Amino acid sequence: MSERPSRVVIENVMPEVDAGRFPIKRCPGEDVVVRACIHADSADILAACVLFKKAGEKKWQESPMRVTNAGLDLWEGRFKADGLDAMEYLVQGWVDSFATWRRGLEKKAAAGQDVGSDLLEGAQLVQAAAARVKGKPAEWLRQQAAWLSAVKSNSGDRVRMALDPELLTLMSANADRDPIGTYRTLTITMEPTRARFGAWYELFPRSASPDPKRPGRLSDVEARLPALAALGFDILYLPPIHPIGKTHRKGPNNAENAGPQDVGSPWAIGSSEGGHTAIDPSLGTLQDFDRLIIASKTHGIQVALDLALQCSPDHPYVREHPEWFRHRPDGSIKYAENPPKKYEDIYPFDFEGSAWESLWKEIRSVVLFWVQHGVKVFRVDNPHTKPYRFWEWLIQEIKRESPDVIFLAEAFTRPPVMRYLAKCGFSQSYTYFTWRNTKAELTEYLTELTQTDVHEYMRPNFFTNTPDILSPYLQTGGRAAFMIRLILAATLSATYGICGPTFELCEADALPGTEDYRDSEKYQVRYWDWEKPGNIKDLIARVNRIRRENTAFQFNTPLQFVPISSESLLAFVKTSPDGANRVLVIINLDPHAAHEGNVTIAPAALGLPDAYEVEDLLSGARYTWHGTLNYVKLAPQPMPAHIFKISHA
Amino acid sequence: MSERPSRVVIENVMPEVDAGRFPIKRCPGEDVVVRACIHADSADILAACVLFKKAGEKKWQESPMRVTNAGLDLWEGRFKADGLDAMEYLVQGWVDSFATWRRGLEKKAAAGQDVGSDLLEGAQLVQAAAARVKGKPAEWLRQQAAWLSAVKSNSGDRVRMALDPELLTLMSANADRDPIGTYRTLTITMEPTRARFGAWYELFPRSASPDPKRPGRLSDVEARLPALAALGFDILYLPPIHPIGKTHRKGPNNAENAGPQDVGSPWAIGSSEGGHTAIDPSLGTLQDFDRLIIASKTHGIQVALDLALQCSPDHPYVREHPEWFRHRPDGSIKYAENPPKKYEDIYPFDFEGSAWESLWKEIRSVVLFWVQHGVKVFRVDNPHTKPYRFWEWLIQEIKRESPDVIFLAEAFTRPPVMRYLAKCGFSQSYTYFTWRNTKAELTEYLTELTQTDVHEYMRPNFFTNTPDILSPYLQTGGRAAFMIRLILAATLSATYGICGPTFELCEADALPGTEDYRDSEKYQVRYWDWEKPGNIKDLIARVNRIRRENTAFQFNTPLQFVPISSESLLAFVKTSPDGANRVLVIINLDPHAAHEGNVTIAPAALGLPDAYEVEDLLSGARYTWHGTLNYVKLAPQPMPAHIFKISHA
Repeated sequence: MSERPSRVVIENVMPEVDAGRFPIKRCPGEDVVVRACIHADSADILAACVLFKKAGEKKWQESPMRVTNAGLDLWEGRFKADGLDAMEYLVQGWVDSFATWRRGLEKKAAAGQDVGSDLLEGAQLVQAAAARVKGKPAEWLRQQAAWLSAVKSNSGDRVRMALDPELLTLMSANADRDPIGTYRTLTITMEPTRARFGAWYELFPRSASPDPKRPGRLSDVEARLPALAALGFDILYLPPIHPIGKTHRKGPNNAENAGPQDVGSPWAIGSSEGGHTAIDPSLGTLQDFDRLIIASKTHGIQVALDLALQCSPDHPYVREHPEWFRHRPDGSIKYAENPPKKYEDIYPFDFEGSAWESLWKEIRSVVLFWVQHGVKVFRVDNPHTKPYRFWEWLIQEIKRESPDVIFLAEAFTRPPVMRYLAKCGFSQSYTYFTWRNTKAELTEYLTELTQTDVHEYMRPNFFTNTPDILSPYLQTGGRAAFMIRLILAATLSATYGICGPTFELCEADALPGTEDYRDSEKYQVRYWDWEKPGNIKDLIARVNRIRRENTAFQFNTPLQFVPISSESLLAFVKTSPDGANRVLVIINLDPHAAHEGNVTIAPAALGLPDAYEVEDLLSGARYTWHGTLNYVKLAPQPMPAHIFKISHA
Repeated sequence: MSERPSRVVIENVMPEVDAGRFPIKRCPGEDVVVRACIHADSADILAACVLFKKAGEKKWQESPMRVTNAGLDLWEGRFKADGLDAMEYLVQGWVDSFATWRRGLEKKAAAGQDVGSDLLEGAQLVQAAAARVKGKPAEWLRQQAAWLSAVKSNSGDRVRMALDPELLTLMSANADRDPIGTYRTLTITMEPTRARFGAWYELFPRSASPDPKRPGRLSDVEARLPALAALGFDILYLPPIHPIGKTHRKGPNNAENAGPQDVGSPWAIGSSEGGHTAIDPSLGTLQDFDRLIIASKTHGIQVALDLALQCSPDHPYVREHPEWFRHRPDGSIKYAENPPKKYEDIYPFDFEGSAWESLWKEIRSVVLFWVQHGVKVFRVDNPHTKPYRFWEWLIQEIKRESPDVIFLAEAFTRPPVMRYLAKCGFSQSYTYFTWRNTKAELTEYLTELTQTDVHEYMRPNFFTNTPDILSPYLQTGGRAAFMIRLILAATLSATYGICGPTFELCEADALPGTEDYRDSEKYQVRYWDWEKPGNIKDLIARVNRIRRENTAFQFNTPLQFVPISSESLLAFVKTSPDGANRVLVIINLDPHAAHEGNVTIAPAALGLPDAYEVEDLLSGARYTWHGTLNYVKLAPQPMPAHIFKISHA
């Protein structure tokens, strides 16, 4: 109780993750809208601001906060996040004595009361402010104070002078904020825009060969870059490209035993030819890889590598660093298992063993190795089987060296675990999207992702499929199912991906009763007819172009589901942050039948006149819509969706 | 990164107020149910507990937590709060290595796999546990370890031994918890049971005279104690009993100027006869007051005083401590105002002036003065016009001296302010109840008070009326309105109050267009016919007896609104914490007409058979109810409600 405490309380600051334990995430140029409940005893007028700065700097910038709901003491302010360095923000509030005094004076004067003493009080406040500023404003304030206290002058003139808005502005700008109410400092992780917006394409290099007589190599991947660029993809994600273990190697379709010609799963990393920093010689050399990176840049594509932190029994680490693995009582190293299942081709690391520190540092050096080779995007395999604290540490360490690195968490597990990995620093997260098919499922899931505070720290990456997930919907829905899922992923989420070429070729052949591809690329080399009839490459290219040309698709919020009178039709509106770009997507979720319905949009609610224009960016057709109800009908073919751009008629 | 971090994460701990900034509140014997989201990487089995202790003690007690929703990683534990000292609680979680190992062994053995190595691993775990315990259990564990590692024994026998539930119990109780996941320590303010449950009666001593020829005195209040006890009240709250100022004294009905015989408002505290520690001589002496306290105890009643922190211009403080007030530029002391309204009979304290520290300490001494005279309950006048930090400090200081003191906040202002005062330490709070009349209003308000985390720190006190609030509902609803509002207050809230005798006499005479009583006791002496026909004293006595006999009414939660097919009927179920007492209240909210409807209660949802008995504790009637729908009809008179006790038929 030695200092006079502030009367102002600041509560319920948003955004804030776990009482400030974790940062929120932003990309350069994005707004941070800060809301808080700010109040004090009595009825004094308060003022508040949000302060912000780069984490390392001393000087705060300041943005004023305004009351948005007086009855609930809700305030709002905003600032733009910028750069790639971490930022900090802070809410402060104080009693505005001059504004409070001015309000009282105004009421008393209006009631015809004697305000002689009040004017003298005001003069004292103005005089005190003059002492806090310099130069001309100080001089002007001192003059005002003198006039306010000129008891022989006309009282009405002095009241008018006291109520001069210019005086209020100058006084508010130079208020005595002491003692000030302060909330805890909150932090922002800044990441490159690609962390928010991008189209991913997953490709197995060994299946990239144009020649069915030999497996693909990195040079074949390089040759495919123009085609990928034409399709509009931003990120080319390669499954592990390291030497593959031979011990307990898996055969085609995950067979227990591989034949001598079988190539094995690239996730069984490491052989006598090297480990996590080596390249499988059958794919090429490190020089080939460097060339791929350079070529990809010329096509505006970033290469993403797979970070799979596990070893085959043949990995050099096993021999050189047995202390990084778990051991059986007989001293042998433990393979991975999920009893009674055994994964004898995989040795997991022991992240909490006695040698944990040297292991963690080694992994950091592996990531930095690839960063130095120009890799800025990592798709992390099964992060939920490694300790959270490891990821929090690793991502911070890498970002300190290279703040433009992006990490995608491939965790398919319980919601709290997926959310916590995002809190720990992953830039993006795999999601349950592949299993959300109905209108109710999609609406509920997207509401959770975009309307709750989850969107402050977790960025979804909607993959339509993965080497492990060929969903029942795709297995049974034919070509239309692929079109529908593509459009859903690409329009609902600013970041999405496909596992190609299976996806654009509408490959739907699964092992019976599973979500596994038959003859999966995971375990064998595949050769593709890249131009196979029935492919949906034109649609992919068009959708990716629409995403690039319409800012609304480059953000996950605001997303607004719109009523439409059919359980098989989903409709939603997205709007760019500046309000200039607005789109309406309507999708038929049923790949087997046409559906029709009326969309309900009150034009006034979107700031539109009663008649307005919608242009279907897929077909090029334009319609004038009238009033609140408008009719649509969508057949699964030739096009199961409208992507309307909305404009004034 | 020097210590091996725990893999276990603890999030979303409930109850928790503002990230632990404020304590939750409990009374002795109440449960603290602690919920948390607890998870780790991988699929290891976790264990968790909630620790609790008195704030001053070193040794924690421990209560296990259990999973309540595995898919969302939700855990729950509980302990009983006890005593009047502040308590602390803490959630901890760890990986249960033995249970994890045991689950794997069980699955492998069931699949017929070789478990030789696994049994040796288990032996190591058991051996390590033996080193952590003493005496017989250590011996037993060492024996088990020896058997598990006896490689020449039958493997099936060893597996059976490994899966022995007794071994699991002992291993879990002695698990290696290091490194442990720990949430922040949270605190509990402990308060006497009367902070939770009680019936308040407000009485102006000067209106307590049985003799219309002289004003009431403290001795008259003492004489009324048996009657109040017969009505079943627990707390007798007296408006300020201190000398009343003469300067700018208010006349009847808040008239600007008082006549020479006018007694003034007791809230204009202080005259030449004394201030906040003096007793108005026209009411009696300090000795009379002490006698009243003693007498009230014999009737099981506690006396509550009014803490109104303001002074009349005649208060001794004004002369002795001008530094505790605000001053005009001419040096005179500022009266209270809410421009353009002036309150010239009141000088507010300056809680943030340069002498704030000596003022705060003086107020503490005033409260302690009355505590030493046996007052343990304070109704605080307008706490929202004094700084929050002052209250937080004062209440802590008083509770340190006397932990059984209760503070009721009389703040009628915006919700965040009312909630924040409760967070700062007020035991109870006035509410918006007087203005919540319809089914929708009552349901919404009670849902906020009982179903959100507000109920962890804010205890409502439902006053039916106050000297300042004669609600339009009471003004226009006749006797039935008083009955309805009494039953609502007394059954919806464990703590409620009436301002008597106006309430039990159904006084409804207001100044036109206001909520003010005509000839309010605030400004003049009133003489009452305590037995006036039409009073509702019998109902009050019966309702208070029902509250004492039915534990369900002594808690605010759980409260469950029940569907009933009429907008004028409100129905709800309350259940005692031990589940033994269950009541169903049905009230006709319309004082002017009878209403009927069907109540929907699924008997099975309450653990009842299809036919069960309800006993109306108001009328004594018993009914057997069948199935889900049951019919009721309630006229405003003679009784607008059923208070059913539910029991098996």
